[in-house]
Amino acid sequence: MAVEDVLQAFKAGELTLDEATAGIRRSYFDDIGHTVVDYDRKRRTGAGEVVFGSRKSASQISDIVANLVANEANVLVTRLDPEKHAALTGLPADAVYHAEANLLTWHAQKPDTPATTVAVVTAGTSDYQVAEEAALTAEFFGNKVMRINDVGVAGLHRLLARLDDLQTARVLVVVAGMEGALPSVVGGLVSKPVIAVPTSVGYGAAFDGVAALLGMLTSCASGVSVVNIDNGFGAGFMANTINRL
Amino acid sequence: MAVEDVLQAFKAGELTLDEATAGIRRSYFDDIGHTVVDYDRKRRTGAGEVVFGSRKSASQISDIVANLVANEANVLVTRLDPEKHAALTGLPADAVYHAEANLLTWHAQKPDTPATTVAVVTAGTSDYQVAEEAALTAEFFGNKVMRINDVGVAGLHRLLARLDDLQTARVLVVVAGMEGALPSVVGGLVSKPVIAVPTSVGYGAAFDGVAALLGMLTSCASGVSVVNIDNGFGAGFMANTINRL
Amino acid sequence: MAVEDVLQAFKAGELTLDEATAGIRRSYFDDIGHTVVDYDRKRRTGAGEVVFGSRKSASQISDIVANLVANEANVLVTRLDPEKHAALTGLPADAVYHAEANLLTWHAQKPDTPATTVAVVTAGTSDYQVAEEAALTAEFFGNKVMRINDVGVAGLHRLLARLDDLQTARVLVVVAGMEGALPSVVGGLVSKPVIAVPTSVGYGAAFDGVAALLGMLTSCASGVSVVNIDNGFGAGFMANTINRL
Amino acid sequence: MAVEDVLQAFKAGELTLDEATAGIRRSYFDDIGHTVVDYDRKRRTGAGEVVFGSRKSASQISDIVANLVANEANVLVTRLDPEKHAALTGLPADAVYHAEANLLTWHAQKPDTPATTVAVVTAGTSDYQVAEEAALTAEFFGNKVMRINDVGVAGLHRLLARLDDLQTARVLVVVAGMEGALPSVVGGLVSKPVIAVPTSVGYGAAFDGVAALLGMLTSCASGVSVVNIDNGFGAGFMANTINRL
Amino acid sequence: MAVEDVLQAFKAGELTLDEATAGIRRSYFDDIGHTVVDYDRKRRTGAGEVVFGSRKSASQISDIVANLVANEANVLVTRLDPEKHAALTGLPADAVYHAEANLLTWHAQKPDTPATTVAVVTAGTSDYQVAEEAALTAEFFGNKVMRINDVGVAGLHRLLARLDDLQTARVLVVVAGMEGALPSVVGGLVSKPVIAVPTSVGYGAAFDGVAALLGMLTSCASGVSVVNIDNGFGAGFMANTINRL
Amino acid sequence: MAVEDVLQAFKAGELTLDEATAGIRRSYFDDIGHTVVDYDRKRRTGAGEVVFGSRKSASQISDIVANLVANEANVLVTRLDPEKHAALTGLPADAVYHAEANLLTWHAQKPDTPATTVAVVTAGTSDYQVAEEAALTAEFFGNKVMRINDVGVAGLHRLLARLDDLQTARVLVVVAGMEGALPSVVGGLVSKPVIAVPTSVGYGAAFDGVAALLGMLTSCASGVSVVNIDNGFGAGFMANTINRL
Amino acid sequence: MAVEDVLQAFKAGELTLDEATAGIRRSYFDDIGHTVVDYDRKRRTGAGEVVFGSRKSASQISDIVANLVANEANVLVTRLDPEKHAALTGLPADAVYHAEANLLTWHAQKPDTPATTVAVVTAGTSDYQVAEEAALTAEFFGNKVMRINDVGVAGLHRLLARLDDLQTARVLVVVAGMEGALPSVVGGLVSKPVIAVPTSVGYGAAFDGVAALLGMLTSCASGVSVVNIDNGFGAGFMANTINRL
Amino acid sequence: MAVEDVLQAFKAGELTLDEATAGIRRSYFDDIGHTVVDYDRKRRTGAGEVVFGSRKSASQISDIVANLVANEANVLVTRLDPEKHAALTGLPADAVYHAEANLLTWHAQKPDTPATTVAVVTAGTSDYQVAEEAALTAEFFGNKVMRINDVGVAGLHRLLARLDDLQTARVLVVVAGMEGALPSVVGGLVSKPVIAVPTSVGYGAAFDGVAALLGMLTSCASGVSVVNIDNGFGAGFMANTINRL
Repeated sequence: MAVEDVLQAFKAGELTLDEATAGIRRSYFDDIGHTVVDYDRKRRTGAGEVVFGSRKSASQISDIVANLVANEANVLVTRLDPEKHAALTGLPADAVYHAEANLLTWHAQKPDTPATTVAVVTAGTSDYQVAEEAALTAEFFGNKVMRINDVGVAGLHRLLARLDDLQTARVLVVVAGMEGALPSVVGGLVSKPVIAVPTSVGYGAAFDGVAALLGMLTSCASGVSVVNIDNGFGAGFMANTINRL
Repeated sequence: MAVEDVLQAFKAGELTLDEATAGIRRSYFDDIGHTVVDYDRKRRTGAGEVVFGSRKSASQISDIVANLVANEANVLVTRLDPEKHAALTGLPADAVYHAEANLLTWHAQKPDTPATTVAVVTAGTSDYQVAEEAALTAEFFGNKVMRINDVGVAGLHRLLARLDDLQTARVLVVVAGMEGALPSVVGGLVSKPVIAVPTSVGYGAAFDGVAALLGMLTSCASGVSVVNIDNGFGAGFMANTINRL
Repeated sequence: MAVEDVLQAFKAGELTLDEATAGIRRSYFDDIGHTVVDYDRKRRTGAGEVVFGSRKSASQISDIVANLVANEANVLVTRLDPEKHAALTGLPADAVYHAEANLLTWHAQKPDTPATTVAVVTAGTSDYQVAEEAALTAEFFGNKVMRINDVGVAGLHRLLARLDDLQTARVLVVVAGMEGALPSVVGGLVSKPVIAVPTSVGYGAAFDGVAALLGMLTSCASGVSVVNIDNGFGAGFMANTINRL
Repeated sequence: MAVEDVLQAFKAGELTLDEATAGIRRSYFDDIGHTVVDYDRKRRTGAGEVVFGSRKSASQISDIVANLVANEANVLVTRLDPEKHAALTGLPADAVYHAEANLLTWHAQKPDTPATTVAVVTAGTSDYQVAEEAALTAEFFGNKVMRINDVGVAGLHRLLARLDDLQTARVLVVVAGMEGALPSVVGGLVSKPVIAVPTSVGYGAAFDGVAALLGMLTSCASGVSVVNIDNGFGAGFMANTINRL
Repeated sequence: MAVEDVLQAFKAGELTLDEATAGIRRSYFDDIGHTVVDYDRKRRTGAGEVVFGSRKSASQISDIVANLVANEANVLVTRLDPEKHAALTGLPADAVYHAEANLLTWHAQKPDTPATTVAVVTAGTSDYQVAEEAALTAEFFGNKVMRINDVGVAGLHRLLARLDDLQTARVLVVVAGMEGALPSVVGGLVSKPVIAVPTSVGYGAAFDGVAALLGMLTSCASGVSVVNIDNGFGAGFMANTINRL
Repeated sequence: MAVEDVLQAFKAGELTLDEATAGIRRSYFDDIGHTVVDYDRKRRTGAGEVVFGSRKSASQISDIVANLVANEANVLVTRLDPEKHAALTGLPADAVYHAEANLLTWHAQKPDTPATTVAVVTAGTSDYQVAEEAALTAEFFGNKVMRINDVGVAGLHRLLARLDDLQTARVLVVVAGMEGALPSVVGGLVSKPVIAVPTSVGYGAAFDGVAALLGMLTSCASGVSVVNIDNGFGAGFMANTINRL
Repeated sequence: MAVEDVLQAFKAGELTLDEATAGIRRSYFDDIGHTVVDYDRKRRTGAGEVVFGSRKSASQISDIVANLVANEANVLVTRLDPEKHAALTGLPADAVYHAEANLLTWHAQKPDTPATTVAVVTAGTSDYQVAEEAALTAEFFGNKVMRINDVGVAGLHRLLARLDDLQTARVLVVVAGMEGALPSVVGGLVSKPVIAVPTSVGYGAAFDGVAALLGMLTSCASGVSVVNIDNGFGAGFMANTINRL
Repeated sequence: MAVEDVLQAFKAGELTLDEATAGIRRSYFDDIGHTVVDYDRKRRTGAGEVVFGSRKSASQISDIVANLVANEANVLVTRLDPEKHAALTGLPADAVYHAEANLLTWHAQKPDTPATTVAVVTAGTSDYQVAEEAALTAEFFGNKVMRINDVGVAGLHRLLARLDDLQTARVLVVVAGMEGALPSVVGGLVSKPVIAVPTSVGYGAAFDGVAALLGMLTSCASGVSVVNIDNGFGAGFMANTINRL
């Protein structure tokens, strides 16, 4: 319950003073021992808490999801591999697991959908999983997403063939591994913000995404900013933030 | 001249066929030997070519600026240290050199000003030069900029005292060296996009900005994307791109 | 036996000269071939030898523990994964294995408990295992430990809600992965020493804890010192050392 | 003025309401444009704001020092090289510049002196400057400091000759470059906390202090924590924090 | 003199046995104390010895050049900064110093010129010096060089305007700093070998050319191989080797 | 079908206008959803598209191969481990899997064979797999390959015994791990281009091929250029490009 | 057979000319396809070829060992894990597998034993495997080895108790992980050469042995040189080389 | 004075008890405030204390040298640049400054000279300074040194021409920058210990000597150990230690 709801319920005698006090506190965060679920985040940042699934136990994640569901908050769990997903308990029946991106989503209420579009562009087929994490995250928050796949710089005509699509989007997430050159080329072709996502695709001197990361940070194109290696979630979130301006 | 103007002039007989052909080509770019000035960039990306002053000779920069001025394009030269600035020749009389940020600016025509504001926030006084590069770049492109200085995370109350200001901005550039924690904290307090700029402030394990860069890339806050170390220009440019959406 | 005990026993005729000589030597250390158990360490440093379980075989660890138990020394084995623990032989019946932190403990005699408290603070739920290594280590040496979980900087109100608790502790262990910003923020809020523990939580540019490590080393807050990545044990030990001053 | 003093003065009619309001705000921090001086820090952390001189202009530092002096706060400026010191204006006549450590100090009131002692230990003569930064910082905050110089591990008898001195101190700052082994050895000889300071002394694979830093972080001795490379100030500050417990 | 010449002269009685023996040895190399000039290299590798000027004293370089001139070998000195060049003694009157690339050249006999062309392509004006080192090296060995400047990937139309030129060359040297993406794009447009040269142009995460180096090594285009950062000489040499096949 | 074939068929009434339009587009690339197969690449670069098998699913690879086969294009899949190969479906019966190099090959039409030879040279037996990737790639494109194995620099006489063979080749691929010195030695013995391939053979300071990579990039021999660590494919491709000049 | 033996057998008519020619060649090396076994190495370097087992297949190793045995050369295979050892075929019945160090040894003839001793010293029990690789290698070449275990610098008295032993050895191999400080301390106590071996023992900032490696390279003690991380073999070999002087 | 001399002088009445006590202490070390000169080192390690000149002030070095001279100990100061040398005071008239290697030497008594020889071998003329540091250090300790210059691996015949010289030496110091391959080749040609010294010669991916260092550590030749980058002193010292066995 939001603070306002607690106050109204207290005034209406539906809650005791103790219940109201605890409810107000919980409207900010709910301390469940191993985790403090942040219910104020949506008010502050426009988007509710997201659960980073890595290094949390299935039991801890199940607790958090249950708490979110009980509080009617939308649920997004990232970095949830299939084994851990299978070990979760008490999930809502209509929660959806996206194995291609290791995401779990569930909506208490659907978000509204902005009129403009987010483009998610990949340099190669091997960048698929990271790109899907970005696209599904943007969709989770209500955005329309246009996927433009496999248009890396070694075959420019494939990219140029999609130029109109690129220029249609209000914000572009550009996903690339290896040398990570695609955001530089795209950044030189559009007037909208480009969120570059380096991926760990490649071997040897790709250093698990470092080559792509450095390439994107030092891009000769302006209007490009960068998120962490393989951080499709972060890019999708940022795209939502910008698309909602 | 833009392509349309060339065509009209040709039709009107003011240009020969050869002059029209050359003029059309130049409306895309002008090859002056050491440099190919990109006059199509503004159409593609919404912002004209910017001159990266590092590693170019004073003579080369003077040539490029003269070409831009002759073509009535706005001029922004970055990374122009005072010695090289002093060696430039043929600058317009009303060109402005911003020594605090190593920038040169000149406007053929003033850009329009968006209604919303860009905030440029610094963690400490030592981040001043990079922050000014960001702020002056955003202003060069016509934005209103609010500067919020020295609100690093070791003294949270200084930051919280400016919370209303932070939440007013449409996009925030957050500049920090050392551990670069400020964007994480700001990102948790606002609903607008945060452009994080790591600076090379610090010593030892700061590794000339690497600590701050890694910190910002791995931020636990969402809605944060990152530009290169000390890249105030890139952040200011990105802020303009977003602010104009 | 301590040197004094050996000397008394020798004087009393309970030990031969050879036995006394060997006993005195063993009071300093006991050479069991693959390992030299350091019994003098407690006298020098105030805390007995601790067994680093990594890269030792189960057989070697079993030998060392047996030697410690026979000499009535307290036993702490770190970095002991469940498989290796299962392979140990001859453990005392009341030895305790803490699977959540890969620790084995056994006490010959309980240490005294200082009046003041050690706080163990985590930025996120994913830092749990490292934090438990710290907390259990501090408890092994007799300290009272207050656990404050999941108060990372992206949700400051969760941290500020525990401010009184933070200021109560005599020494604080602050555990964080990703950008590792929490010790900087905590260090700006308390007057007591902060031991920062970077964790390997995160991916990509987190570089298995390097981002957090560098962030903590370059903290803009004073009164923060740092231990190795994931070194909960070292932080717990240091906290004990300081808490006993 | 502290909040209490402002309130009393207001009650006594010595201040108008506006003066009192501004005064209360300034008791927390004073915003002088480029810098926000944090006057609440001493209350929170037990030690007032310290000025990091690097990357600040002489003019900015002069402003900050003048503000501190006007508010009767003690002054410590670190990383102040002789040229910048010479360019400062308006310093109090009795400010002291310590060229051997690039520090400026001035006291509005002398701090009290704890009964126990801080030891500052160096591995070699080349570590002198960093060690002095630590020692002078500790002395600035009122501590008695014992300097033990040039007792590196390649000549153990020099170290063992000072063993009694080492064991006398309540907290030890151990400064070493190159392989940085001294804290490991000292840590195995004392029961008090050791603050290890890696220095950039060395060449080649010393990598400006990285070798020493890694060595100290991975020390086989317990009870050692580490600060940034060449961060004598941080070690001296931490030593003061611990010595005052 | 080549071995054959020595033998003929000996047979003709123009040389004594000792003179012939020494001459034969010198036809392989000439030991002048600090340096062993390799006169056999041209026979083995098709190109005579080149003098790496860095870290050699002016006196050493003068000795080596004098030896080469006396033996009628062509002279190429690289990494010769203007100060060191000014300090050389005994240079042939017609030696040429190329200040824009820190090269000194002198020809005993002009090499023949292959029919095909080497292209030297730069991403930006800031890459000029490295590109000239490559171009002048290729020209030193007799090649025709086509320079294509400032066609970086953020303005693709500049590059595509030169497509015919690019496809004309038999081998392409592509020089780029920052993210180093140009070789990937060029490699996708031509069927000839591309030698990629990363430059140290850029700052921050460019890491003095590392970003460009990694980008080129991990290029998604095939037919690209890489030389050291700023190694224009190596690229020009390799281009000559390939152009002469 | 090539564009010319489509046009002829359309003129002959064998294709409708829609079929012709689609056919022309497909002659450039074929968008199959997850992947855009680049059929124009062969015309541009002289070699058809190669499939990088890593991080693509067996289903995606099967789709791409089927598309290539249907279009009568030769097939080369790299980085295809045995498990993924076993999971492919619909392969042509005469496709060949080379388990020693994780390659799959199939030819629609055999390429012509240049008269000259590519040498593939290894420093040690442990470099075998990478060398085979290079040799089989060069053979896939029609080249004759001479393998020279296990001639590392610690036993020079083994290398010198093959000197004539080395000097026979028109281009040399030199594969080495550990310190990667072999290309430097070979480069000093031949007049043909050397493509150096660092391998990840070695441990500790070999850093998975970094030591060899750096060694090859900084080779004191000229005429050496470098591809990514373990990139046998890239070296074989480059050798083909050069051998066909 | 050595060259001399072949010549004698040829003179005696026991070998044909072809057999003699092939035999002489084989006395230098034997090319078995994937590998060129270097039989001249023993003459050149005093020690026969050693087989690096990593990245070679069991079949390749079996071939090489068979060749060595057939030529009556001693056999040492390093980095041979138990699975690969189990897969070898045709081993001599008296070949010995040392699972504790992943070594296989077999002697055609026992080497002579120098009068002086090699010491192998470890910092901790976790360094055991690497130390055994060194000790067994030295023993393979005929040396007497004294093992001194678990005398790391955090318990100096354990080391000092073995001072006489340390000073007895003619060459010392000192093995340590973590901060790798032991060679510095030992180097300051003995007048004989110290071969330092960093191990990958440790975690976090130990970076798989990098911390120890850098520590040893920058040791403040003289008379210390270093081999690769975990390179017990190299240290044992070097110790043999020195011990035989 | 050595302890024995003090005792004799005391017995002879030439010293008082206090003088004898102080003298005995000084025979171990002499504490001169900023430095503790280690006079026992020669007894322990066979070689007296050497002064590392870097980061010590001229005044500190002058003090140490004066103390050594007064105690009739030989003097070697390393890393003493010409400016600092010029600022030293009170040097013995016959002290020798070796500007080519930044060394100062003075002998109280000449060391004896071993019968065998140390070879110092360089890959290129640019390695001269480091090699001289090694050669002069070895000569300082009394060794005969053979210098073999400029025999890098790109011109093998230059190296092979000196093979007899190489095999004559009892220990070899091999100095190389860039890829650092020379020790591997030399190590495969001799049976004596090779001390490899990486130099910071090179640029770009040489990373100030890192490429050479890694190359030497991962050498495929056995019997090679390594010292720090540019550490000619350490190599010369180690060579002396081995040559005196």
